[in-house]
Amino acid sequence: MSRPRALTCEPYALYCDEYELTMAQSFLRHLQTGLVAFELSVRRLPPNRGYLVAAGLEQVLAHLESLRFDAPALEYLRATGAYDEQFLQHLAALRFSGNVEAVPEGTVVGADTPILRITAPRIEATIVESWVLATINHQTSIATKAARVVDAAAGRPVWDFSLRRVQGPEAGVAVARAAYIGGVAGSATVVAGQRLGIPTTGTMAHHFVLLFGPAGELAAYEQFLRDYPNRATLLIDTYDTVAAVDRVIAAAHDTGVTVTGVRIDSGDLMAVADEVRRRFDAAGLRDVHIVLSGDLDEYRIRDLLAQGTPVDSFGVGTMLGTSYDAPALSAVYKLVSQQEGGLMQPVMKHSTDKLTEPGVHQVFRTPAGDVIGLDDEDIAGRRLLAPVMSNGSAHDVPRLQEIRERALAQVAALPAEVRRLEDPAEWPVARSERLRALRRSLGARE
Amino acid sequence: MSRPRALTCEPYALYCDEYELTMAQSFLRHLQTGLVAFELSVRRLPPNRGYLVAAGLEQVLAHLESLRFDAPALEYLRATGAYDEQFLQHLAALRFSGNVEAVPEGTVVGADTPILRITAPRIEATIVESWVLATINHQTSIATKAARVVDAAAGRPVWDFSLRRVQGPEAGVAVARAAYIGGVAGSATVVAGQRLGIPTTGTMAHHFVLLFGPAGELAAYEQFLRDYPNRATLLIDTYDTVAAVDRVIAAAHDTGVTVTGVRIDSGDLMAVADEVRRRFDAAGLRDVHIVLSGDLDEYRIRDLLAQGTPVDSFGVGTMLGTSYDAPALSAVYKLVSQQEGGLMQPVMKHSTDKLTEPGVHQVFRTPAGDVIGLDDEDIAGRRLLAPVMSNGSAHDVPRLQEIRERALAQVAALPAEVRRLEDPAEWPVARSERLRALRRSLGARE
Repeated sequence: MSRPRALTCEPYALYCDEYELTMAQSFLRHLQTGLVAFELSVRRLPPNRGYLVAAGLEQVLAHLESLRFDAPALEYLRATGAYDEQFLQHLAALRFSGNVEAVPEGTVVGADTPILRITAPRIEATIVESWVLATINHQTSIATKAARVVDAAAGRPVWDFSLRRVQGPEAGVAVARAAYIGGVAGSATVVAGQRLGIPTTGTMAHHFVLLFGPAGELAAYEQFLRDYPNRATLLIDTYDTVAAVDRVIAAAHDTGVTVTGVRIDSGDLMAVADEVRRRFDAAGLRDVHIVLSGDLDEYRIRDLLAQGTPVDSFGVGTMLGTSYDAPALSAVYKLVSQQEGGLMQPVMKHSTDKLTEPGVHQVFRTPAGDVIGLDDEDIAGRRLLAPVMSNGSAHDVPRLQEIRERALAQVAALPAEVRRLEDPAEWPVARSERLRALRRSLGARE
Repeated sequence: MSRPRALTCEPYALYCDEYELTMAQSFLRHLQTGLVAFELSVRRLPPNRGYLVAAGLEQVLAHLESLRFDAPALEYLRATGAYDEQFLQHLAALRFSGNVEAVPEGTVVGADTPILRITAPRIEATIVESWVLATINHQTSIATKAARVVDAAAGRPVWDFSLRRVQGPEAGVAVARAAYIGGVAGSATVVAGQRLGIPTTGTMAHHFVLLFGPAGELAAYEQFLRDYPNRATLLIDTYDTVAAVDRVIAAAHDTGVTVTGVRIDSGDLMAVADEVRRRFDAAGLRDVHIVLSGDLDEYRIRDLLAQGTPVDSFGVGTMLGTSYDAPALSAVYKLVSQQEGGLMQPVMKHSTDKLTEPGVHQVFRTPAGDVIGLDDEDIAGRRLLAPVMSNGSAHDVPRLQEIRERALAQVAALPAEVRRLEDPAEWPVARSERLRALRRSLGARE
């Protein structure tokens, strides 16, 4: 257990949508500052997703604990002319004082399931909406994608190679974290090692080989092997991949250094890997690992393995780091309850195509699926939502390794049809009779 | 003109891939520290993209100027056991000392076109690769998506509403910047106003209306109109969108305040907007703007306008902020030239499916398309690559508004078939005869 950690050092209070501030000013002016409860859930699972792996909670807690409107933020807001002094003074003194309940990070969840609830004075709960959504949407999206890729790799390690293709460098460290939760072995992103203790790895770029000129592949390999004895993974597709194997074998012989592995990043990966494996085996180098990379995702990895491609690990970049086939999650943050006359009362919105669930919920887990009920119900099953912050003070958070193990175990325990990569069944989510009755009483059509 | 600004405050040196550091250590050990030139280009345009809008350069320059391995970074690297003291001391003293040439931000470019060139000592050019790629890939991807959405909106303002759905909050400010370059009117993201001077906007969330209870829509509107006279955009789809119009009209009458606009975020946008417009017009409120939002992108906006939907502006979130239909760019950073015997010599890689362009290039723009030639060629056309950093010192950068105007003007000047939203023609990019001859001389098959 440890304290929640932010991934970056910015004061984040202004990472919000403008309407959060204009509504908050109106709430303050009219003393609409009672307690409210907002719940975050993912309305619909993205295409080809039978489940989600919840992630991002630790950064949410770190954000809430450190929420401050600093002097430059207040100065900017004042300069816009949209905010009065009473409101700015309120913001200057504002600290997050609410409670948070959440499912543990690494928990597998289905559609329309509360992942997190914030119960706080209305202004506080309002101004953190976008930050909380962006963080949970992003990390949950990537942890889920990673779980699928890891599942497809069937026990072979998968490494996150995505930093250069994600939504800016900052996104890279969050991707490394979420991918690790989803089960990757680690990341090529160095800062993920420094900041989060995630295992890191590296191979070699094409330009390392190019440095030595067209006839210099052997010299490149020898230098790298001597500099990194027993931990060098050599990139072999700069010129002719299969011919490069003979140079790797020669370099290993000349230097007397054991080659850990080779990486292939282009070409017909299956055919090339077959021939590369055959040549190393013929030379008695059966322990040289083959690392495959280059636009891989869960679908290509599944196909490569189905064809018996000899491969020991995968480097996955773009497709993992952007969750390419489903690049956004539709998590929403909805008012479910508010104080009226001193009591918390359920709230429901029902426009044409978007119905929210009223009331304060609990998720009850059974081996056959989840039941969403009201928090004060007594339903068979393990309660997933648990307190993680009280009166603005975060509880200790689990270690990242523990979160990762939870995710791996829960995914492994899912029914095969939910884990399926294409057209999966969704993890079953039912609603309790009392919740359905509450919806009806508030006017919902069944 | 102004100094380049970073978007966040992190010391970023460890936002790199591990192989950058292991290669750099090997380079240092073997004194392979001569000048090299790397060029960044987007190999293939994503689906349905006929052009790209280059963006992200300013943050690249700010990063290069501030590049430092601080004490915690060095301490971490030392603790990994992978780096020797000589290398760590080299990193401690390292500053970026190279030159950068780039196309101006907001420039329209095609496939395989150098957007940026870094000429620097080998170690410096190596360790910045992933950071530079992540930044240019991301901002260029979003600026391009924004340009398409703005183009589809045919003069109606488009606002960035994407913060909650992007790859973490930090990505949100870069998205706001890139989307503004691509032509959006502004963003709902407050920090984009504070940090970058981008116009911001806000409307109202459903929970503002829910606060007042099922019968409280009128009261909600009245409070908001009184608090934000003459600048309130009211959200009208919390319950029954069409019925809400009558309450907006009543609230305007009761308060005597002019309603700026209403936002519709759900339902059959065309049918609902039609009826909403009709009712406002019948009440004489012809100046009330209709803002549409809710999973919009360039395709839906085109279809809404083609059907004559009455709409004055758009809020675009998820699809813009993730470039949903093409969520990654394949920009690469390739060694094109290196010092040999005191002279810069062209370099080319040619594995099976990835051929790089040798030599130091220039992009020559003509009305009919671009010609990629060698930098010392004299070809008709405007030279797009120009110095932006000399010996590690960034030149002043243009104002964001100027960048945005450049992008809007260049997109407007593109042939219709290149601007087409689906199956566009690509902006033509040719290679000069001298460049093609150089490729042949280095062994490329035509």
